Amino acid sequence: MQVTRTLARFVAECRPESVPDAMRHQAKRALLNVLGCAVGAARHETVERAVSALVPFFGKGEATLWGRTERADAPHAALLNGLSAHVLDFDDTHPHAIHPSAPVWPAILAAGEHRGASGAAMLHAFVLGAEVELRVGNMVYPAHSDTGWHATGTLGVFGAAAACGKLLGLDEGRLTHALGIAATQASGLRAVFGSDSKSLHAGKAARDGLAAALLAERGFTSSLEGIEARRGFAHVLSSARDYAAGLDGLGSRWELAQNMYKPFACGLVVHAVIDACIQARDAHHLVPEAIARVHARCNPIVFELTANREPRTGLEGKFSVFHAAAAALVHGAALEAQFSDACVLDPTVIALRRRVDAEPDPTVAKMEAYVAIELTDGRRIEHHVPHALGSVERPMADSDIEKKARALGTGVLPAGQIDALVSACWAAEELPDARSLTCHLSPPANRPAG
Amino acid sequence: MQVTRTLARFVAECRPESVPDAMRHQAKRALLNVLGCAVGAARHETVERAVSALVPFFGKGEATLWGRTERADAPHAALLNGLSAHVLDFDDTHPHAIHPSAPVWPAILAAGEHRGASGAAMLHAFVLGAEVELRVGNMVYPAHSDTGWHATGTLGVFGAAAACGKLLGLDEGRLTHALGIAATQASGLRAVFGSDSKSLHAGKAARDGLAAALLAERGFTSSLEGIEARRGFAHVLSSARDYAAGLDGLGSRWELAQNMYKPFACGLVVHAVIDACIQARDAHHLVPEAIARVHARCNPIVFELTANREPRTGLEGKFSVFHAAAAALVHGAALEAQFSDACVLDPTVIALRRRVDAEPDPTVAKMEAYVAIELTDGRRIEHHVPHALGSVERPMADSDIEKKARALGTGVLPAGQIDALVSACWAAEELPDARSLTCHLSPPANRPAG
Repeated sequence: MQVTRTLARFVAECRPESVPDAMRHQAKRALLNVLGCAVGAARHETVERAVSALVPFFGKGEATLWGRTERADAPHAALLNGLSAHVLDFDDTHPHAIHPSAPVWPAILAAGEHRGASGAAMLHAFVLGAEVELRVGNMVYPAHSDTGWHATGTLGVFGAAAACGKLLGLDEGRLTHALGIAATQASGLRAVFGSDSKSLHAGKAARDGLAAALLAERGFTSSLEGIEARRGFAHVLSSARDYAAGLDGLGSRWELAQNMYKPFACGLVVHAVIDACIQARDAHHLVPEAIARVHARCNPIVFELTANREPRTGLEGKFSVFHAAAAALVHGAALEAQFSDACVLDPTVIALRRRVDAEPDPTVAKMEAYVAIELTDGRRIEHHVPHALGSVERPMADSDIEKKARALGTGVLPAGQIDALVSACWAAEELPDARSLTCHLSPPANRPAG
Repeated sequence: MQVTRTLARFVAECRPESVPDAMRHQAKRALLNVLGCAVGAARHETVERAVSALVPFFGKGEATLWGRTERADAPHAALLNGLSAHVLDFDDTHPHAIHPSAPVWPAILAAGEHRGASGAAMLHAFVLGAEVELRVGNMVYPAHSDTGWHATGTLGVFGAAAACGKLLGLDEGRLTHALGIAATQASGLRAVFGSDSKSLHAGKAARDGLAAALLAERGFTSSLEGIEARRGFAHVLSSARDYAAGLDGLGSRWELAQNMYKPFACGLVVHAVIDACIQARDAHHLVPEAIARVHARCNPIVFELTANREPRTGLEGKFSVFHAAAAALVHGAALEAQFSDACVLDPTVIALRRRVDAEPDPTVAKMEAYVAIELTDGRRIEHHVPHALGSVERPMADSDIEKKARALGTGVLPAGQIDALVSACWAAEELPDARSLTCHLSPPANRPAG
């Protein structure tokens, strides 16, 4: 089976009229959401460290660093915007644990600023790039992640290469090589979760995918079977693979339709527990002192990823279901403030966190949770969330995503620019070029923080 | 066992006086050899494609592209010099199938041009960087390569990170993070062997290792167990691992002592067959018409890597033991000219190639070969090479490496510059800075090719 070439042919041949309007709308939701996440993280210490290390090497400033005053060459912009898009763990998620936008949109906008590309062309490139990364992901899910790979990095590079290749107008042959160049650059280990390097994976995927398309455009060669060769991606980076499942319905069924947007600023696996805690708190007007004990029952993946009982930093707090539940019960929210160092070190939150217990239950779905709260007065509250807010079954509304992006942008960009940015995203198919969007992403130079 | 931290501590603490002079001499041999390989490939089509794709993004031209007139920022120079160093498959090799210099020396010289570094500091950084990449390699050899990874890429990034980290003066803690950042960037699939992408691996390792050191310098974090964590490098990228073996004798036994330099312009596994053919040809004044049949008996790895019976290009010829034997018998040499498209398509070579047969024999060592030649007059010549020229047991002399580098540089750099370059390499410990070496690597601008 010609897996790599089949995907390349799909990307080369697919015309905008073959894509349902609903997918273009998903692309706009993804765009606004990812820009909000990146702008909100623009001054995050992870981003500051990366920018300060790499700024001496920036080329011509043709591309925007979202939410920052510096400008960079396209590959550095792809790298740093991909990093900032993922650093808050607030970006979109496919059910198979891939964050589709953080590696792909930064690559597209950097290529678009470099070469000139219309909004319509960029939306189309995103739909195809996301489809490629998600379908390669389906071929190796779940064995690939189970092996220890961070799918956002290892699959994102395919998405960025496919999207940029489409934007550059590569033919089927060059797209096949671009996907091979992507395959041989795939990297990102789950060992670094909880450190700055996790978000580097998304940035690297964006930069390396863009490079794969640029190299292939010049005739740079790779394997024509980068995915399916005996020593290709699917064999070397996964203990199991199913090409037919990954290619099934290509061009008629769209994986992007499954894309989820997060209302809470942490890994999706904790969302159902947070949702249950906030709903219980609001329904019963709970205060921390009234809570004797919290018992959550959730899918075992929650423990695999977020079992940190004593987080010491905001970032570690994102990987602690115990902190997430306690902070949600104390604050009735789970935004960036609830995953700050201050909140993780808050004595009230710590005290409640130590009264939170959790139990893995394989009969509970990933986006589902049962929470039982024992009160000091002896009452017992039980709350069941069958589908967390933001799930495929209970998606965030467009207005929710807009509100989230506005909240993330506030303090980084002036209010008028945020308005213009939101409008530009919802009307992206009418934008004459990338810069008519990215011009809203640079704060006025020399403007003090806040 | 603290594997990553142990290596980081070794790099942070090791002082030049703890390194035997013989290792510094190996570093100089490696330097001259790798510069020759890169300069010889400076106008290769693989390099031309990569440079043309990436030149629009070059930053400040503080670093030299070896053998070319363009200048680039340090990361792009590391990438492109690493690529050109490996493109001819003529660079050095450790017995465990790693090419130590192509990912490490380009990173060191780029960092050296960027920050300023003495020749002595760069030699020391190379010894330590090579030691780290080779010892991580020993931990996962041979399972890692058998899985399908190209060790020059996946291990080279550790070497470049360690070497650049030493050059930047990182302490043990930051070096530990640098090795983690390296681990999570490790990539390079054997599926792309025979294409332009193979040499991209060495370049990416150089660029990404340099970036790992620069990021760690700014406090960018990673796992402190990038190598040994459950979802770290050694578990995810290898089916087996032995940390104790990799760390045994660290600082007293030097893996760099095993480094081999190639007299022939192709993979090391074919060298013994080539050597045997050239020796038989020269001893018996053989001409192609006199040869009825050639039978080679060699290690099975030769067939795994170079079983192409009908190569169509010079590059494919490097992966054909049949072509290598025929070309060596026709020309008495196996340099770049014997792996050109013209030689691969030469009817005399093709005719002889089809009379070459080869047999895998697990009792024959990797650098050993038996060749039996039946002549048209009925005579039979047998030749046994127990250790190919360039092996640890039969190393190339310094003068051989110098001669090879001069031959590779001719036509790219003026003779006077090659003289200066050779002198600078042999006296590298006295160079005040990187630029007093790299100034010899740029051809005079606007000088026509040849």
